[in-house]
Amino acid sequence: MSDVQGYIDREMHRFQEELFEFLRIPSVSTSSEHTSDIRAAANWLEARMREAGLETEVMETQGHPVVLGEWRGAPSGAPTVLIYGHYDVQPAEPLEEWHSPAFEPTVRDGNLYARGASDDKGQLYLHIKALEAHLKGAGSLPVNVVVLAEGEEEIGSPNLLPFVEAYHQRLACDAVVISDGSMFAPDLPSLLFSLRGLAYFEIHVKGPRGDLHSGTYGGAVVNPGNVLARILASLKDETGRIAIPGFYDDVMEWDPATRDAIRSLPFDQEGFLKEVGAPSLGGEPGFSHLERVWIRPTCDVNGFLCGYTGEGAKTVLPSRAMAKVSFRLVPRQTPDRVRELMEEHLAQVSPPEVEVRLVELYGGRPWKADPEGEFFEAAKKALEDAFGTPPVLAGEGGSIPIVVDFQEILEAPVLLMGFAPPGANMHAPNEWIPLAYFEKGIRAVASFYTEIGG
Amino acid sequence: MSDVQGYIDREMHRFQEELFEFLRIPSVSTSSEHTSDIRAAANWLEARMREAGLETEVMETQGHPVVLGEWRGAPSGAPTVLIYGHYDVQPAEPLEEWHSPAFEPTVRDGNLYARGASDDKGQLYLHIKALEAHLKGAGSLPVNVVVLAEGEEEIGSPNLLPFVEAYHQRLACDAVVISDGSMFAPDLPSLLFSLRGLAYFEIHVKGPRGDLHSGTYGGAVVNPGNVLARILASLKDETGRIAIPGFYDDVMEWDPATRDAIRSLPFDQEGFLKEVGAPSLGGEPGFSHLERVWIRPTCDVNGFLCGYTGEGAKTVLPSRAMAKVSFRLVPRQTPDRVRELMEEHLAQVSPPEVEVRLVELYGGRPWKADPEGEFFEAAKKALEDAFGTPPVLAGEGGSIPIVVDFQEILEAPVLLMGFAPPGANMHAPNEWIPLAYFEKGIRAVASFYTEIGG
Repeated sequence: MSDVQGYIDREMHRFQEELFEFLRIPSVSTSSEHTSDIRAAANWLEARMREAGLETEVMETQGHPVVLGEWRGAPSGAPTVLIYGHYDVQPAEPLEEWHSPAFEPTVRDGNLYARGASDDKGQLYLHIKALEAHLKGAGSLPVNVVVLAEGEEEIGSPNLLPFVEAYHQRLACDAVVISDGSMFAPDLPSLLFSLRGLAYFEIHVKGPRGDLHSGTYGGAVVNPGNVLARILASLKDETGRIAIPGFYDDVMEWDPATRDAIRSLPFDQEGFLKEVGAPSLGGEPGFSHLERVWIRPTCDVNGFLCGYTGEGAKTVLPSRAMAKVSFRLVPRQTPDRVRELMEEHLAQVSPPEVEVRLVELYGGRPWKADPEGEFFEAAKKALEDAFGTPPVLAGEGGSIPIVVDFQEILEAPVLLMGFAPPGANMHAPNEWIPLAYFEKGIRAVASFYTEIGG
Repeated sequence: MSDVQGYIDREMHRFQEELFEFLRIPSVSTSSEHTSDIRAAANWLEARMREAGLETEVMETQGHPVVLGEWRGAPSGAPTVLIYGHYDVQPAEPLEEWHSPAFEPTVRDGNLYARGASDDKGQLYLHIKALEAHLKGAGSLPVNVVVLAEGEEEIGSPNLLPFVEAYHQRLACDAVVISDGSMFAPDLPSLLFSLRGLAYFEIHVKGPRGDLHSGTYGGAVVNPGNVLARILASLKDETGRIAIPGFYDDVMEWDPATRDAIRSLPFDQEGFLKEVGAPSLGGEPGFSHLERVWIRPTCDVNGFLCGYTGEGAKTVLPSRAMAKVSFRLVPRQTPDRVRELMEEHLAQVSPPEVEVRLVELYGGRPWKADPEGEFFEAAKKALEDAFGTPPVLAGEGGSIPIVVDFQEILEAPVLLMGFAPPGANMHAPNEWIPLAYFEKGIRAVASFYTEIGG
């Protein structure tokens, strides 16, 4: 192990310089003008993975390529770990809000600012460097590894699931490790025990053929705007609980130990309220703040539009109204079942004077870890070694649908260990990561392999 | 009387040619590029009014001028009638939907197509021609008259009330006649007995300082979109009645005779539904279709907007939401009282986790005629003479706030007799009026004066 950590000590400066190079490539996956940058990032990454000691391949998909790296020289019987990450980034706009250029990595106060610093180039690259530290510092790894780096995460990974299905034998592993999130608090690492799923819909209400004069027709023609408001209001009761019949039937009640653990986490309610800037916080009665965002489902209006919304008064009775509504799901719920419940509910609450149409835009299942076993224990120990404090078990309110797919297709537990700082400005201007977290991440991941092999 | 009708017989062709000239002037009041056209229309109208035998004056306001015409040569003790109309028009866009150019009057099948044909140049000009028929055909009028033609009706008459207040002595009269609306049905003239008022609001709901990620924050931050939907839903109950406490306290219950008269009108429910193109009609229980649009108040969403409304799924928890909501008011209701009730109601239903703000955009009082007395009787007789059928008494769902002001400031009854055909495409492409209605309108108004004088 001293070989490995010693290698990291000696090469840390070069590791950082390489990360800067990686971050300078504007590999924005959503924009066709960056297609060659995506390709350049894939090739650059492949070359560094090869130099680190992996066998590599840039594999084509229907979209941006996957970079695969493999090392299968571990002693017989040693486990195989799959590392997933992505080399594409979000657009950098609005550019004028960056204090230094988005694709010119800049260090201020020990923090590295650049698009992709945390999401996910910085976190993907620390994994590559941890592998290199073993392979070059100690000559081998105690485990077999497969690195799967995709270039379409920021556009919803349209080709990842087909890829995993097609290559599931080559990707076969005993554990999946993903670093694409944040630590629970500054200097406090975490391992995730859950992710929420998502069911995202549009509701369309159509009344008269065209917009009407609200004076001439108002009172005799049912208004799609009023109807949609009533439908949206019917989705939750006045306490904030979801009022769709049957919605909670599949919602898992968590064990008291987990709920106690969540409640005991150091959460700064006042700081959160200040950050959010709302008059006050709210949510489902009987649950703490972190429970509300981690282990309880939601129903949120994401947007709505109807009629005239410009300046002044236009006396229009609108022809149609639409809303985007999404539900965050928790274990045992499925997007399919929620769609069925929504359809049944809308049939109940929709008046006959309008047409109501439900469109499902997107669905992703929730995920729950079984945070036990050798890999979790090894991860806990490794994170404590690197950060000087044991990780907390944390939930995540957002959704990463591929996690469920990995777990099911590869039949392996998934470890989500994020090294981004809270408030990393992922998807926003001035994205950053402390250089210390980049280094501690390398050390933690390197220790993780040592722990598994030990 | 034969002198007057004979004059109309002889001069009808010229009357039409003059109307075509009037309609060729694109006097669009809302557009600054048409300022000189507005002025040209005012000057053209003044010249024709002078030729008709009136003393005329183009009077400046803060905006577009008022054209005033007067004839005060009636026998001592004769009443004075004020005729109100407007020489400005709506924009003609979308131009490509006109079958003939908007400002090139075109006759097809006896119908005259042009912007302003019905609203209101055609109806204003038939009054001028009726006056001319008396003054030139018979040498005098049996009544004194004042014509008030404004150029800002299509932009909300911002300078009309101050004008009426400033000149109320010069405008003093015994009755006001306005022709700026439609007949009840084809060939079936009408006199209005009521107009609805209007109270128009914006509701703004503000939650967090900025848009948030619905995964990370959803469940713990109250969503302004959900709250606004709940507020809008709270304004009406599931039957369609307005649910704001106290809202119906000031709503006048109409006498059974008027309600019977309304129910006995020949209303084509099926044709209306076809025109509107909604799955079916609806409205307040216990009231007929015409009652719902004429004598009952409404609460209509005119528009709403929040969050993301573009293509696809964006998982945003919006910072704010807004809606435009307006109420049509019926006699005894006032916009001020409705604003108070809304404020009280919003205070009751707004949760503490958001800021809710009510903005009043516009208010206008409802109006109710006392459809009796010599002027109404004369109008009924004159309309029957011209159209061969007595007029029906009708309500109007829309609002013309100046009617209440005329009635109060000038202390005179207001007669609303519309000569536009139902479906005249006022404010829309292919506005039209039957040339027969233009002529019958002239004859009816001419008879009206004869009746009063007789």
